Amino acid sequence: MPRVMVSSTNNNNTNTPNTTSNNSSSSSSSSDENIVNIYPLSNYYFGSKLPLSFKDETLAERAQRMRTNYAAYGLRTCVEAILVVEMRKHPHLLVCQVKNSFFKLPGGRLRPGESEVEGLKRKLSRKLCADEDGCDTDWEIGECVGMWWRPDFETLMYPYLPTSLRKPKECTKLFLVKLPCSKRFIAPKNLKLLAVPFCEINEKTYGQIISGVPQLVSKFSFNFIED
Amino acid sequence: MPRVMVSSTNNNNTNTPNTTSNNSSSSSSSSDENIVNIYPLSNYYFGSKLPLSFKDETLAERAQRMRTNYAAYGLRTCVEAILVVEMRKHPHLLVCQVKNSFFKLPGGRLRPGESEVEGLKRKLSRKLCADEDGCDTDWEIGECVGMWWRPDFETLMYPYLPTSLRKPKECTKLFLVKLPCSKRFIAPKNLKLLAVPFCEINEKTYGQIISGVPQLVSKFSFNFIED
Repeated sequence: MPRVMVSSTNNNNTNTPNTTSNNSSSSSSSSDENIVNIYPLSNYYFGSKLPLSFKDETLAERAQRMRTNYAAYGLRTCVEAILVVEMRKHPHLLVCQVKNSFFKLPGGRLRPGESEVEGLKRKLSRKLCADEDGCDTDWEIGECVGMWWRPDFETLMYPYLPTSLRKPKECTKLFLVKLPCSKRFIAPKNLKLLAVPFCEINEKTYGQIISGVPQLVSKFSFNFIED
Repeated sequence: MPRVMVSSTNNNNTNTPNTTSNNSSSSSSSSDENIVNIYPLSNYYFGSKLPLSFKDETLAERAQRMRTNYAAYGLRTCVEAILVVEMRKHPHLLVCQVKNSFFKLPGGRLRPGESEVEGLKRKLSRKLCADEDGCDTDWEIGECVGMWWRPDFETLMYPYLPTSLRKPKECTKLFLVKLPCSKRFIAPKNLKLLAVPFCEINEKTYGQIISGVPQLVSKFSFNFIED
C-alpha cells in the first residue's frame, strides 16, 4: 500500500471532489467524542499554488535565529495538525514534504501572544488553502493529543521535559483536526501534500513526531464514512 | 539514571512512606484536566506478597487458549494502567517485571460483561495491593489515552486496526491512573514492580506498548509535588 501523492503540480481545476451523499452525517453528530468520522481521500480536491518562500539557511544559521528569537520572545511554540483521510478502509495521514526532502505535519510557529487554535488555523490556511482570508479557511481544531519539547536549539525533541530542564526552547503541540466531508486543499508547489497509510509510517522516513501519530490517535475510533 | 527496583522481596513493614504535607493539594484540585500531580517515589511503600500463579504454557498453548476463549466470548479486552511517580524531577513509570523476564503494565483481561474501569480496579488491586477487598483498593482511573489491537492470535499488536481486518482478537486499552500522594503497593513476588525513568524507556527492553507511554501522556503536564 504505497503512499499517495495528492498535491497536483500544475493544475487547479481537475479532480473535483466527490461530495455526494454523507450530508446527514456531519463530523459533529457523533455522541462519543472519541469517535472521529473520516472521509475518502477522493472526497478532497488537491491543487497547487505558488511556492512558499522558505528561509534558505544552514542549520547553524537556523540555531542562531532561534537563539535570537528566544532572547526576544522566550519559548517558541509550534502547533501542528493531524489530518486523517480514508482509503481502502485504512486511515491515511496527510503530511507535507518540504522541497522534495523531509516531512512535516502542516502547521507552524505561533506569533507572540497568538492563541494555539487561531495560530493553527492561520498556518493551515496559509499552507493548505487557496485564499488565506476566504471562506475556505474554516478548520475544526480538536484536542491537543501530544507535546514535544526541544531542550536546546540544536537538539532532538522529547515527549517529556528532560530532567532538570528549566528552560525548554521549543514546544510543539499536536492537534487532531477534524476534516469536513469534502474540502479543497491548495498547497504551495514546494510543499507537497502526501497521504501516508498508517501502516507505512516509520521513524526513519518520517521522523519522530510523525511516526508517533498513529499511537497518539489510537484512542480514537475512526468511523469510515462511505459514499 | 538507572531504573529503580521498588518491590522489596521479603519484608512488609519497613520503608513506611513519607506522607507529610501535601494534604491540601489533592490530585483532583487541578482546574486543568491536563495537569497531573505526581508525587515522589519515596512517598510510596513497596512490599511483597505470595507469588501469583501464572499459567505455565507454551506460546502455542496460549494461542490455543485464546482461540477457545475467542470462540466462547469474542474479542478479548485488556485494560492496563499508566502509573507515574517522580524522582529527581523526572517522571518515572511503574512497570511490572514478570518472573524476572519481560515487562508489562499492571492490568489484565476483563471478565465478560465487566466494565473497563471496574475491571482495571480489580486487576490493580489483585496485583498491587495487600488486600483485594480492603480500603486500600481505591484507584482513580483517568482517561483512556491509547488502544492497541491484535489482529490474530499470534501476531504483534498495532495502534490501529489493520486494513480489512474484520474481527480483531484482542484490544488493549491504556488508562492514566492518578495516584494519591501516598499508597502501599504490595506486589506478588513473581511480579516485580519497577520505576523506570521516562528517558530510559525503549522498545527493545520494554516492548512496543510500554515504549509508547511517554508519548501517549505527553499532552499532560506533570506537576511535581514536593514535600
